Amino acid sequence: MTETPNYELFAFWRTSATYRVRVALNLKGLTAEEHVINLDAGENRGESFLAVNPMGAIPALVANGSAPITQSQAILEFLEEAHSANPLLPKDLHGRARVRSLVAMLVADTHPLLTGRIKKYLVGNGHMDDAAFRNWQINWFTTGLQAFEKRLAMDPATYCHGHNITMADICLASIIVVMRIFKIEVADIPHITRIMALLDANEAFAKAAPLNQIGAPKP
Amino acid sequence: MTETPNYELFAFWRTSATYRVRVALNLKGLTAEEHVINLDAGENRGESFLAVNPMGAIPALVANGSAPITQSQAILEFLEEAHSANPLLPKDLHGRARVRSLVAMLVADTHPLLTGRIKKYLVGNGHMDDAAFRNWQINWFTTGLQAFEKRLAMDPATYCHGHNITMADICLASIIVVMRIFKIEVADIPHITRIMALLDANEAFAKAAPLNQIGAPKP
Repeated sequence: MTETPNYELFAFWRTSATYRVRVALNLKGLTAEEHVINLDAGENRGESFLAVNPMGAIPALVANGSAPITQSQAILEFLEEAHSANPLLPKDLHGRARVRSLVAMLVADTHPLLTGRIKKYLVGNGHMDDAAFRNWQINWFTTGLQAFEKRLAMDPATYCHGHNITMADICLASIIVVMRIFKIEVADIPHITRIMALLDANEAFAKAAPLNQIGAPKP
Repeated sequence: MTETPNYELFAFWRTSATYRVRVALNLKGLTAEEHVINLDAGENRGESFLAVNPMGAIPALVANGSAPITQSQAILEFLEEAHSANPLLPKDLHGRARVRSLVAMLVADTHPLLTGRIKKYLVGNGHMDDAAFRNWQINWFTTGLQAFEKRLAMDPATYCHGHNITMADICLASIIVVMRIFKIEVADIPHITRIMALLDANEAFAKAAPLNQIGAPKP
């Protein structure tokens, strides 16, 4: 893509998936006009957002009035293909596969277990009380991050893969920032802890931090 | 890649994620030497498989003795990048984004809720009896497929995207074949039903059907 399109991002301050897109835009030096869709107020199910995306799902990225692109992985791949600057995937086939595998460990194996609709089902239908749900959260954050840590330990590098930030780092940070909101900690993940300190110090990540977004609770 | 590498696939007859890789290999006219890892017997946690993949995760694809590539999405993208014949993604950026978004609706939003480890947690720790877990399964198969149906209805075509088979069709079929094993049905999904009939008639999909694999129960 030679000209940068006019991006609109339908977003909410807190969600892990929206955070991923914000970081990717920042890393690529792109900006998007952000439209806040307040999930706590059910705005994603409101008429005006359903006219944009009948699925009611955020994040949704609209480029020059295109059909909305949904699902954070698809948006990251789209931005990568549309904007070659500051690549978020390595060049070699096996490196790309490793990064995408790391991404899936978090975005597919871990995060979907921890979303609002899962809480609604498990708590709402009476099977779990709040403490049991918190144990569920802790269990899957721990399982996911310990498995991820093990992968990192097999090929230690500056970042999750090699010496450049990739989609794997974006997805790792997206899990950690949400875990912080829930005040959950996972022990014995030294590679993750070291990499997360680097990412915390990176402006593209800091600017995307949930508590820095419009609509976030004031400290 | 000019020469076809020597592929080894660590696999089990029943899993949705292994099925995706088998179909992709078939569609691209590739073959892999298959090593059965019997999940029911815990072979994925056995010493000999952990020497191949310390994560104990299948499917794992090894190309010419490479480090194993894990996570079905990463393997599909790898095969697509390594073998341009019979593309599994469209050429245009927005089409690719739509296909990857459809993939994520199933592979990230739906399938991870329905795996063995989730059953183990929900049933094993006493919160759910078998009937309650079956309701959980039915709920997420239904939620995932009805959302997917809605996306298909917005842009109806021969397959999930346009007139060629893509990763979205592979992932759709991977959900349906597992749902059949569980004898679960979802009503009112006419686009999915029509597309699935096409895929059932396609040799690449039929050959990959779980019950046709080594280790499957005899009818």
